[in-house]
Amino acid sequence: MGALEKTVKRITGLDEAAMAAARRRQDTLTKPLGSLGRLEEISVHLAGIFAQPIPIPRGKTIILGAADHGVADEGVSAYPREVTAQMVLNFLRGGAGINVLARYVGAEVVVVDAGVAAELPSHPALHSAKVGWGTANIARGPAMSREQAIRAVESGISIAEEAIARGADLIGTGDMGIANTTPSSAIVAAITGREPEVVTGKGTGISEEGLRHKAGVVRQALEVNHPNPSDALDVLAKVGGFEIGLLAGVILGTAASRRVAVLDGFISGAAALIAHGICPRAGDYLVASHLSAEPGHQAVLSNLGLKPLLNLDLRLGEGTGAALSMLVIEAAARCLAEMATFADAGVSEKKAEET
Amino acid sequence: MGALEKTVKRITGLDEAAMAAARRRQDTLTKPLGSLGRLEEISVHLAGIFAQPIPIPRGKTIILGAADHGVADEGVSAYPREVTAQMVLNFLRGGAGINVLARYVGAEVVVVDAGVAAELPSHPALHSAKVGWGTANIARGPAMSREQAIRAVESGISIAEEAIARGADLIGTGDMGIANTTPSSAIVAAITGREPEVVTGKGTGISEEGLRHKAGVVRQALEVNHPNPSDALDVLAKVGGFEIGLLAGVILGTAASRRVAVLDGFISGAAALIAHGICPRAGDYLVASHLSAEPGHQAVLSNLGLKPLLNLDLRLGEGTGAALSMLVIEAAARCLAEMATFADAGVSEKKAEET
Repeated sequence: MGALEKTVKRITGLDEAAMAAARRRQDTLTKPLGSLGRLEEISVHLAGIFAQPIPIPRGKTIILGAADHGVADEGVSAYPREVTAQMVLNFLRGGAGINVLARYVGAEVVVVDAGVAAELPSHPALHSAKVGWGTANIARGPAMSREQAIRAVESGISIAEEAIARGADLIGTGDMGIANTTPSSAIVAAITGREPEVVTGKGTGISEEGLRHKAGVVRQALEVNHPNPSDALDVLAKVGGFEIGLLAGVILGTAASRRVAVLDGFISGAAALIAHGICPRAGDYLVASHLSAEPGHQAVLSNLGLKPLLNLDLRLGEGTGAALSMLVIEAAARCLAEMATFADAGVSEKKAEET
Repeated sequence: MGALEKTVKRITGLDEAAMAAARRRQDTLTKPLGSLGRLEEISVHLAGIFAQPIPIPRGKTIILGAADHGVADEGVSAYPREVTAQMVLNFLRGGAGINVLARYVGAEVVVVDAGVAAELPSHPALHSAKVGWGTANIARGPAMSREQAIRAVESGISIAEEAIARGADLIGTGDMGIANTTPSSAIVAAITGREPEVVTGKGTGISEEGLRHKAGVVRQALEVNHPNPSDALDVLAKVGGFEIGLLAGVILGTAASRRVAVLDGFISGAAALIAHGICPRAGDYLVASHLSAEPGHQAVLSNLGLKPLLNLDLRLGEGTGAALSMLVIEAAARCLAEMATFADAGVSEKKAEET
């Protein structure tokens, strides 16, 4: 049995008893019933994930997968392909958005070369898991072989496991890859059945004309490759990307270890669809951090039954939304753990409803 | 000239030059143009408030006004009136939601007795600014005199100034007062012209029948008192509350000192309408932290032209939403200050648009 199959077998459901205990405790805390809204929901979700009635997540890690995409040749991105490798260097020097936000929230950033089309320097914060030098052009044929798809996913599983071994309880997904909204749109269209035009957006900022062209490329990728929507590994291999496969593995590895997979935006959402396709129960371990400005992201969240925590019109990727939302998740856990109960505080409870 | 009038005279507009400089810097940072969405907008707003091209807010304070409301006699709240004083004691012991969240975000909490109908113990974290032992019942007559309204507002100004003198750059507004959604709905209806039924909600959790009764009480308060919508102090005196006046003053004092007034939910929103009515320019210094589950809150935000940062279905008050959103505000400032530029990082910029 391969690492992927073993990991999938380890993914079990949420702990209902811990969730019920957390819910009961919420109702004794000194606030009107339900008045902390989604913070209460998150705290109960965390209880189910960690199997603890009063969960306290500790370490935070962003796993940032970087890779190149052959479909960049079709002119689908506003930025030249070499930006992928340049941004990896920027991540390693600490100058990118994710570096700033991860420092602010106290999260570690693990940068992973899942398939950048360049030789990258060795660096303590750079994990090499190169499956190839960029994918093939999905407008002409499959992105990668099924074996490569499995390799990308299994790399993600082991990198998540290493982060968890170092103490991470919240694992955020991040991505960097010029043109990677194109395979993400193809995955979302393939799995959710939406039209390419509905789930394709302007990515880093192309024109209206560029957008029409990009949606056409997505449509062509689906027509050329015929991905099988009920076989997520087939979808990943045919129209995906190396970093997307890696992040799908990160989600599966995180779920198998009963930790929280904090999804970033659209590319992470495409990875979540792949992970969910491989193992639907992994969906129980997902928290959606934010609603991306990319139009396909809502389709992802609806498909997975997720509601984003933040709505800040972010469309940067890198795990920036995931990093920020970790603060909301921690705050939710703190409220459950630290608030006084009505009994402790000597506060009167709600009046009996008059009838 | 009174303290209120002097403060209003000190409130001037945002610094347009600093905002333009911040906007220019955003466009040189290593990310697709505009891809940090609202974080970019906030950073530019902060530049205008602090009159600095790269603003870094430091200290954070929540000013939590507590008071009682005569209209509680009409049975408009799910909780008995003594909960106001009991919760003040809970704030002082650190057991309430705002205590937990303020600790988490590193904010000081200043609890202010603006008019609690009980003798409260002296305590280093409790500021006494009692304007009365609860307001009069607005369903029967005015809440307070115009002199009391001015006194409440001026207390808020001086408490904000003290917090700023101690180093606060972000001032969050918080409230506690059993029945205080009722005067807030009355203020919102009076100033925005919406029907009482549209801007009255379930507060701490009353029944559908209770909600109909409460909206009727709001309507009655408006009919009995005839507040003048173009005279915000008249609205405050006729149908407001002591903590609402205090928070209006906090906003004015914060704006006069060029700091950020971080609004919590519905009651803070009613206070912001009063502050804005007294001095429209104070609106430039407001950041809306979250969209409350109270239906009238959207009317407040529309009226003030504000967009909330968080949408977490909170309806606790106390400044909980303000505390959480301070993290988003700080993160926004950090991105502007700390991200590398394209030139520094050697990252290629956007391709020229093909024509």
